[in-house]
Amino acid sequence: MLAVCLYKGAVFLRDQPRPRRPDGFALIRLLCGGICNTDLELQRGYYNFQGTPGHEFVGEVIAADDSYWIGRRVVGEINLACAACEWCKRGWGRHCPRRTVLGIVKHPGAFREFLTLPLRNLHRVPPGISNEQAVFVEPLAAACEILDQVRIPSGAPVAVLGDGKLGLLIAQVLKSHGADVHLYGHHREKLRIADALGIDSRARKNTPAAAYDWVVDATGSSLGLTQAVKMTKPRGTVIMKSTVHGVVAIDSAPMIVNEITLVGSRCGRFEPALKLLKSGRVEVDKLISETLPLKKAPLAFRRAVQTGAMKVLLHA
Amino acid sequence: MLAVCLYKGAVFLRDQPRPRRPDGFALIRLLCGGICNTDLELQRGYYNFQGTPGHEFVGEVIAADDSYWIGRRVVGEINLACAACEWCKRGWGRHCPRRTVLGIVKHPGAFREFLTLPLRNLHRVPPGISNEQAVFVEPLAAACEILDQVRIPSGAPVAVLGDGKLGLLIAQVLKSHGADVHLYGHHREKLRIADALGIDSRARKNTPAAAYDWVVDATGSSLGLTQAVKMTKPRGTVIMKSTVHGVVAIDSAPMIVNEITLVGSRCGRFEPALKLLKSGRVEVDKLISETLPLKKAPLAFRRAVQTGAMKVLLHA
Repeated sequence: MLAVCLYKGAVFLRDQPRPRRPDGFALIRLLCGGICNTDLELQRGYYNFQGTPGHEFVGEVIAADDSYWIGRRVVGEINLACAACEWCKRGWGRHCPRRTVLGIVKHPGAFREFLTLPLRNLHRVPPGISNEQAVFVEPLAAACEILDQVRIPSGAPVAVLGDGKLGLLIAQVLKSHGADVHLYGHHREKLRIADALGIDSRARKNTPAAAYDWVVDATGSSLGLTQAVKMTKPRGTVIMKSTVHGVVAIDSAPMIVNEITLVGSRCGRFEPALKLLKSGRVEVDKLISETLPLKKAPLAFRRAVQTGAMKVLLHA
Repeated sequence: MLAVCLYKGAVFLRDQPRPRRPDGFALIRLLCGGICNTDLELQRGYYNFQGTPGHEFVGEVIAADDSYWIGRRVVGEINLACAACEWCKRGWGRHCPRRTVLGIVKHPGAFREFLTLPLRNLHRVPPGISNEQAVFVEPLAAACEILDQVRIPSGAPVAVLGDGKLGLLIAQVLKSHGADVHLYGHHREKLRIADALGIDSRARKNTPAAAYDWVVDATGSSLGLTQAVKMTKPRGTVIMKSTVHGVVAIDSAPMIVNEITLVGSRCGRFEPALKLLKSGRVEVDKLISETLPLKKAPLAFRRAVQTGAMKVLLHA
C-alpha cells in the first residue's frame, strides 16, 4: 500500500505492507486526511519525528473483532491510551503517560492507504457529514476542548488571536456557545472567510490593551502569547492553543501583576465536535484550500505552507 | 524627617519635610518596616523606580479626619485605588488601573519617619502581634491570595518551590489550610528553618517530574517557572508567585501538551493574614535575620541581598 513518510524535512511516498491489526484494533481504509500545522511542525523536526504523519482523517473500517464496525465510516481519537492508569480511569486517556499518538508519537499516522486504531478510539460519522467535513472533527474537538476547561459566560466578549484554520474553528465554536467573539488576524483573505462565516473580524495590528476577560491565542507564533497577555484584563484568562516548537521569550511580570490565568489546551472529545458539524452550527467547507490525491502528498505539503493556505486535504 | 531614597542603584538617607496629609488620608509614624525582594528589584531598576521604597510596615496613626484612628497601631494595604472604577466597585481595588502603590508606583513608601495612606487602606493590629510580626502582614496576605484564587482540596500534596521568605510564608499558609506541603529549596540553613516550622522540606536539586496537581513557584528566579511546569501533573496548576524583572525564556509546549493552568498571583487581602498571625498558625519570628535602625538603611539593604539572608527589618 501507499504511505506518506517524513524524514529529515523531506516528504516522500513509500510502498509498504498493510499494517498488522492487533486485537481490539480496527483496520481502517483511508477516505480522506487533512494536513495540520502540527504535521508541518513534525516536518520541521518537532518531536524528532520520522515516519508516517497524519492525525486528521476519516476512513472506513475494513476489519475488526466486532462486526458492528465493519463497513462503518469513522473518525478516530488520536491518543492511544493504556486504559489502566490513573489518568485513563479518570476518563483522561488524552493525558495517559504511556499513550502513543496517531501520526505524532510512536504510532504511524493516517496518511497511508490503511491504518489501525483501537476500536475504543472510533466514532461513527453520521450521514449528512461529508468526508471532507469529517476530517475537521479532530481540530474541531481541540477547539471544543476550551469549553471543557473554562466557563465562558454567555454573551462575554472573547478575543481570538489568529485567523488560521484553528482560529476560525475556535471562533465558530465560541460563537455557537453564545460568546461575543472578536477574531483578530493579519491576513485579509482569511478575515474575509471570517466575515463570510458571520464572525466579527478585526486587524491584529492595533489590538486593544487590557480589554478582554477571555483571550485565545491561536496564532501559532511565539509572539502570540505576549500579545494575548497584553489584551487581557486583570484577573482574566488566556487560553493557549498555539503549539510553538521551542522556547518562547515572555515577560512574566504582567501575568503576575495582573493576576492573569493561562490555560494550556490541546486535544478534545469528539462528541461535541460531531454534534456541531451535524447541526451546521460550525461550517468548515470554506476552510478547505484544496484536495489532492494521497500520491501527491509532497505537493500537498508544499501547498499547505504557502501564505494564505487553509486546509489541504488528501484523498485516497 | 528622615527618609530612605533609592536612586540609580544607590540607597541613601535624606532629611525632608513631613508629608502633607490629604483629606481621607492618615498621617502615620513608622514603627517598623521590612525589606522585601521587590525593594531589592526596585534598587536594580524595576519600574524605573526612584524615591522612597518600602511597602511592608507597621505604624501609629498621628493624624486623621476620623479621631477613631488616632493613636492606633496599623498596617496598610499598599494599593491606593480610585474607589470609583469597575475594578474598585467589584472589590478589586488591587487591580484599579488608576492605582498608585505605596513605595512602588507614584506614592512614596514606608521607609521614612512619617508616611500617608488612605484611611480605607488601614487595618488595626490587634494586641498580641508584635511590631516585628506585624511587618509580615503584607507578604503574608500575598501568600494567602493563593487561596482566594484557586481551590486546593484539603490533604492535597502541594509543592512550594523556593525556600525564601515568601516560600516559607506560602508553605505555612497552605499547611494551615490543610494541604500536604513539600517545600523545595537550595539553601541548607533555610530548609532548616522550614524543618523548625514543621514543614516537610526537600532539596530542589532532584525534583520529581509530573508529580503534583499544585505547584507554587516562589523561587524569584527565571528558572523557577520551567521547573514548576515540569513538576506539575497533566491538568495541574502552577501558581506564579515570582516577580522576575525582565523577559523569561520558557518552553510553552509542555504547558499546552499537559494542559497546565498557570495562575499569576500578587497582593492579597489583609484580613486572613492578620487572623493567621494572631492565631499563631503562621510563625514569622524565625524569618527575621536582623533589625536595624532606619538611619542604617544603606547597610540594611546590603545585608538583605547577602546569601542566606531572611527578612531585614528597619525600626524608626
